[in-house]
Amino acid sequence: MSEKVVLAFSGGLDTSVCVKLLEENYNSEVITACVDVGQPIEDIKRAEEVANILDVYKHVTIDAKDEFANDFISKGIKANASYEGYPLSTALARPLIAMKIIELAKKENAVAIAHGCTGKGNDQFRFESIIKSMSDFKIIAPVREMNLTRTEEQLYAEERGIPISPDSIFSIDENIWGRSIEGDLLEDPINIPPEEAYDWTSSIANAKDDEEIITIEFENGIPIAINDDKKPLIDLIKIANEIAGSHGIGRIDIIEDRIIGLKSREVYEVPGATLLLEAHKGLEQLVLSKSELSFLEGVSTIYADLVYSALWQEPLKEDLDALIDSMQKRVTGKVILKVFKGRIAVVGRESPFSLHDIDQISFEDKTNDQREIEGMIKHHGLQAAIYQKLMKK
Amino acid sequence: MSEKVVLAFSGGLDTSVCVKLLEENYNSEVITACVDVGQPIEDIKRAEEVANILDVYKHVTIDAKDEFANDFISKGIKANASYEGYPLSTALARPLIAMKIIELAKKENAVAIAHGCTGKGNDQFRFESIIKSMSDFKIIAPVREMNLTRTEEQLYAEERGIPISPDSIFSIDENIWGRSIEGDLLEDPINIPPEEAYDWTSSIANAKDDEEIITIEFENGIPIAINDDKKPLIDLIKIANEIAGSHGIGRIDIIEDRIIGLKSREVYEVPGATLLLEAHKGLEQLVLSKSELSFLEGVSTIYADLVYSALWQEPLKEDLDALIDSMQKRVTGKVILKVFKGRIAVVGRESPFSLHDIDQISFEDKTNDQREIEGMIKHHGLQAAIYQKLMKK
Amino acid sequence: MSEKVVLAFSGGLDTSVCVKLLEENYNSEVITACVDVGQPIEDIKRAEEVANILDVYKHVTIDAKDEFANDFISKGIKANASYEGYPLSTALARPLIAMKIIELAKKENAVAIAHGCTGKGNDQFRFESIIKSMSDFKIIAPVREMNLTRTEEQLYAEERGIPISPDSIFSIDENIWGRSIEGDLLEDPINIPPEEAYDWTSSIANAKDDEEIITIEFENGIPIAINDDKKPLIDLIKIANEIAGSHGIGRIDIIEDRIIGLKSREVYEVPGATLLLEAHKGLEQLVLSKSELSFLEGVSTIYADLVYSALWQEPLKEDLDALIDSMQKRVTGKVILKVFKGRIAVVGRESPFSLHDIDQISFEDKTNDQREIEGMIKHHGLQAAIYQKLMKK
Amino acid sequence: MSEKVVLAFSGGLDTSVCVKLLEENYNSEVITACVDVGQPIEDIKRAEEVANILDVYKHVTIDAKDEFANDFISKGIKANASYEGYPLSTALARPLIAMKIIELAKKENAVAIAHGCTGKGNDQFRFESIIKSMSDFKIIAPVREMNLTRTEEQLYAEERGIPISPDSIFSIDENIWGRSIEGDLLEDPINIPPEEAYDWTSSIANAKDDEEIITIEFENGIPIAINDDKKPLIDLIKIANEIAGSHGIGRIDIIEDRIIGLKSREVYEVPGATLLLEAHKGLEQLVLSKSELSFLEGVSTIYADLVYSALWQEPLKEDLDALIDSMQKRVTGKVILKVFKGRIAVVGRESPFSLHDIDQISFEDKTNDQREIEGMIKHHGLQAAIYQKLMKK
Repeated sequence: MSEKVVLAFSGGLDTSVCVKLLEENYNSEVITACVDVGQPIEDIKRAEEVANILDVYKHVTIDAKDEFANDFISKGIKANASYEGYPLSTALARPLIAMKIIELAKKENAVAIAHGCTGKGNDQFRFESIIKSMSDFKIIAPVREMNLTRTEEQLYAEERGIPISPDSIFSIDENIWGRSIEGDLLEDPINIPPEEAYDWTSSIANAKDDEEIITIEFENGIPIAINDDKKPLIDLIKIANEIAGSHGIGRIDIIEDRIIGLKSREVYEVPGATLLLEAHKGLEQLVLSKSELSFLEGVSTIYADLVYSALWQEPLKEDLDALIDSMQKRVTGKVILKVFKGRIAVVGRESPFSLHDIDQISFEDKTNDQREIEGMIKHHGLQAAIYQKLMKK
Repeated sequence: MSEKVVLAFSGGLDTSVCVKLLEENYNSEVITACVDVGQPIEDIKRAEEVANILDVYKHVTIDAKDEFANDFISKGIKANASYEGYPLSTALARPLIAMKIIELAKKENAVAIAHGCTGKGNDQFRFESIIKSMSDFKIIAPVREMNLTRTEEQLYAEERGIPISPDSIFSIDENIWGRSIEGDLLEDPINIPPEEAYDWTSSIANAKDDEEIITIEFENGIPIAINDDKKPLIDLIKIANEIAGSHGIGRIDIIEDRIIGLKSREVYEVPGATLLLEAHKGLEQLVLSKSELSFLEGVSTIYADLVYSALWQEPLKEDLDALIDSMQKRVTGKVILKVFKGRIAVVGRESPFSLHDIDQISFEDKTNDQREIEGMIKHHGLQAAIYQKLMKK
Repeated sequence: MSEKVVLAFSGGLDTSVCVKLLEENYNSEVITACVDVGQPIEDIKRAEEVANILDVYKHVTIDAKDEFANDFISKGIKANASYEGYPLSTALARPLIAMKIIELAKKENAVAIAHGCTGKGNDQFRFESIIKSMSDFKIIAPVREMNLTRTEEQLYAEERGIPISPDSIFSIDENIWGRSIEGDLLEDPINIPPEEAYDWTSSIANAKDDEEIITIEFENGIPIAINDDKKPLIDLIKIANEIAGSHGIGRIDIIEDRIIGLKSREVYEVPGATLLLEAHKGLEQLVLSKSELSFLEGVSTIYADLVYSALWQEPLKEDLDALIDSMQKRVTGKVILKVFKGRIAVVGRESPFSLHDIDQISFEDKTNDQREIEGMIKHHGLQAAIYQKLMKK
Repeated sequence: MSEKVVLAFSGGLDTSVCVKLLEENYNSEVITACVDVGQPIEDIKRAEEVANILDVYKHVTIDAKDEFANDFISKGIKANASYEGYPLSTALARPLIAMKIIELAKKENAVAIAHGCTGKGNDQFRFESIIKSMSDFKIIAPVREMNLTRTEEQLYAEERGIPISPDSIFSIDENIWGRSIEGDLLEDPINIPPEEAYDWTSSIANAKDDEEIITIEFENGIPIAINDDKKPLIDLIKIANEIAGSHGIGRIDIIEDRIIGLKSREVYEVPGATLLLEAHKGLEQLVLSKSELSFLEGVSTIYADLVYSALWQEPLKEDLDALIDSMQKRVTGKVILKVFKGRIAVVGRESPFSLHDIDQISFEDKTNDQREIEGMIKHHGLQAAIYQKLMKK
């Protein structure tokens, strides 16, 4: 008798192939689940259509957009989370998708959860770490378990009449926080990414011809308004994506160290994330002490590394959240940015928690006697001076 | 009898006032010294002229451009040294200027070294830490010791007939690695810097209308050629400043934590530095291991903090140099960048020391069995899983 | 007319001299305040007596023992706070003493707060950073302001008939968390501290001749019982001091970097602190993940540095408290220690939050197939292997 | 036809079983190799005897003691390398053993290298990371590949007549730098280790009844003499083991995080390592600047983590070596220690590179005016003060 399996499903090649593999090789009744984390609406519709064509046991679309913004992206913003230059779009969404799939699998009395990841990438880690720490479901990874290459998958799809979308030559993943593009000619780090790799952002040449001044307001480290228009976070991200995308902002091209240690050339489009993170950091410079800023830099790196590396469930992540929340209580205020032709510049900022003291800093200040600094200078670098004198001997 | 004092001299208000203060209040014969670290040639000429007008005992111009590039900026590049977003132009030059002044003071049998810094800024620390650790000269800081405000200095200058250059309303410092702009309306972090604050960089609106593809070649972490044209570092920096400046690259606007703890709004123009550092970091992603990249990030922050904070002489800086040199032995190769309208993007990179393995990364690879990864995934995040299961009880 | 000044008073040489200096040179009516942070009861009595002899305007003893244990030492324990090997006794007490003095000064309508610190040490920083950030009181530091040496103070004391206690040749500071000893022959790092420097701890030769097994129980990182006897923290510390002291535990002899950068040889007796911190760290090894333990190590260093360096009020300290509290929620359980002849060893530990899985670790486990590890090993150190193969070419 | 395999051989249960497994299941001719890294001479002899009884193709003993001391332990000392409290004895020796086995396998024209590690521990990683990055030999791990438990191995040994040494109930590994003890009742963290677990160290009760004063001399961070007797490092370690062991020094009992993430209770005896590392750190406090000491603490943790985690070949390890060597150039001088009943105390230290300035530190110093410090205090913690005042509003 066949058993119910919930498959995380996008309607792309990998997951479509998985439906048939699960039915044929794993004796499964397949429930396909598409979790909406803000990817384009056509993608969600295509998943439905493909599921229909493949005649799956059941197809479910789960709306998780608000949860994604409020419980995942918000943490990424507060932490300035960026892994080797990449603001973690896919990495932030995977734990939530896995959690939603677990919920569904429980409701449907499934016996296993399946995913379409291959054995080279990061997402297999991200899915499975959540599934194994939050449930006891068996995990099935058909493509990996059968060691298929992309070409083999394509052949299998043709044989089984699986619809292959007239897609990009690239492997794409999208959610509201970003779009990742990999594969084909991008694999070689010396190749310049072609314009057709991009979808969310204008090229500089085609970007708007006028600069735009934007104000972004934060409360406790979270954006609450753009240009004085208060909205839920999910809507602000959408607006940020549009504004920044139209100015050609947010294209990223890096060499990334994958979880298993391979270096991989990755291209991303993250217009809204780039804009909001720049604004966030600009405000922090005003309200956090030098010690906090310097410590936070290391924390951001570690936080991003945990999220990237499928360790969303690490107790250290929770500890860092507590630290970050303590800092972010003062990250409240307004930032002015200039965006134009691919460039963002923070050009103004203000906050009720500003540690900037305009009177003390002025060249005209007479309330502080400059001579008082002499004792400090005398002792500054005392050990360096002792060292240098010693070395001269 | 009056005593010989060497004064670090720029011909600006502070140091011009110092000449007279030293003569009148400190009974000194003043030798003015202008150290050439790549500031505009007019600045060096103006220093000569002003010294002449002020009728100093002697005026000396010291060419330290090559030393600045080869022994100071090169270290900044290798370390990716950037303090809170500022690539340390003035901070890198001050130790060298102080060293050159010490040499001169010894040659001239001076009894003291003087500088024009006030008691609010960073440069007093940078001058004095070098002087006290490398010599026994008495240090005189007339403006600070007399607790003068800018207005008081201006009045004094008028009374003594000291030429005040028809300068910018801003306080400017320039060397080949960057230009810093502060004071006046910039003091308030909410004010947007006006276009006239900038001199080295085009506005985005006025920047070139065509994108430019540039290749930069590195050897042991140091740029050796731009667009295949090999030149000494000092010349490459000049070229980088021109290219990047013409594309509107390198304007920086930050809230900076000064050595004494005051937050200060600072504006910089660092076109060449921005270009070369981006290229450098792009190449490092290809050749350094993930562990190295992650460790280097913390090292860069500490390195920049030491240089910024007048601790060029700290033994830890020497230790970090040894570490960085060990890493940089492999930072050899070529980087392709696209520059356009204020935006730099690394779009290609290659190196004989690349850790990128294009065969292993490919979706078509069959030499590595994907199933081997299962044991790794099973153990990945083991403690996180134990923790989560524990917490559910 | 003379003005009321509250003086932090111990009855020792420095503060006794200050009473007279304040009266004679600062035209003050002196209120002496002795804050009880668990120093020996005789010290508190002597302060009263000396105040009486000196005929001060008013003498006040303030009991702050419980606050010291619950709000200051407890934070030190949770953070494993130790500065260069010293568990921060004096440094932890100074902020509280300053706070209590501020309260008193407000109640008494004083105009200033005075302390007896010289210009070489750390305590002047610790007092003044609290006073200036929590009040607007004027600060008077008579010994420093008059630049007196110890010998000059002694002469002045003799002239004024100030009682000099037949004290130790050393300079001592004590509170419930530790005893610091400095000065005289200890100043030279090559001299071995003589037995008479110690008071709280037996020498190894005189320590008890039987080993003792102790259990210490923790809840949320705080000790709540010793040998199953639940008591308030302040009492547990007292007991820990007695047990550990009788076994010769807790003598510390280090070269310490003072706030102003001088290296100083410091000797401490911290028997209870040593015992409780060892137990605390022993329990953490069982319940915190490897990532947490490794991150906490850096946090402890920074935390101790902040406390040592008079930055109790830094916002970063509050942020770190939030992080530490998040971790300490699981530091609940029991630790068994063996103490004997100066040596402490954690020899057993257990906790409901233990991440130790005795079944998985066993050599007899069959539920986990050893072969699964092969894929992990294959990928472990992948970049190191690529690097080494590259270098061989 | 059978193929030649070199087996890392100790003569214990695991490796003895491997000989037969290799012959029977892998069709091999087995060359057993015992690498002498300072384990007890009886162990080396027993390996020879057991190899003889097992009638192996060839048995080789390789003396690597000096290399171990000079190229591996010396690095551990300079780095203060200690992983979660354990000074890395086995972890330091494994890379060298693997290197020696590779050399032998090349010389013998073997086709594979075998080891006896199970799939739970760390040593499989340490062997294989070296073998795969330094050679192309096939790796065979018979016990792991056949998924045998200890009991199954014992049964197999009985069946095949493999001599089982009348060994300890514990699993032991020894080399000159330390002895590790695990298994049996030690697996449960709440059990107190019994006295028979220890071999190199006296119990405190049986330790010498007189304290001993020892001087240790260092040059560039390496011990060169004990009690003024200059010897090669390997001999000094032997002497240090004897002295410290006789005083009951160097028993370690910790919960350790293994490479695969399991927590494991581990017991070690490291008398010499404990003594030499304490002395080394004591000297560093005198000669390194505060910035260096604080940075080095993090470096030590990372260094130990790399070595423990089988990443001896990571390029970051080489970078850290360069940094550490730069620091250690000044770690030259003499340390006096008191050892007695399990306790080590550094009680004196001196160095030509001392940064300690006895004149400045003295309470009697008049050359430095105490009042100069006031300006420093005024600015100390400036941001903390601004923050506190802001928060009160």
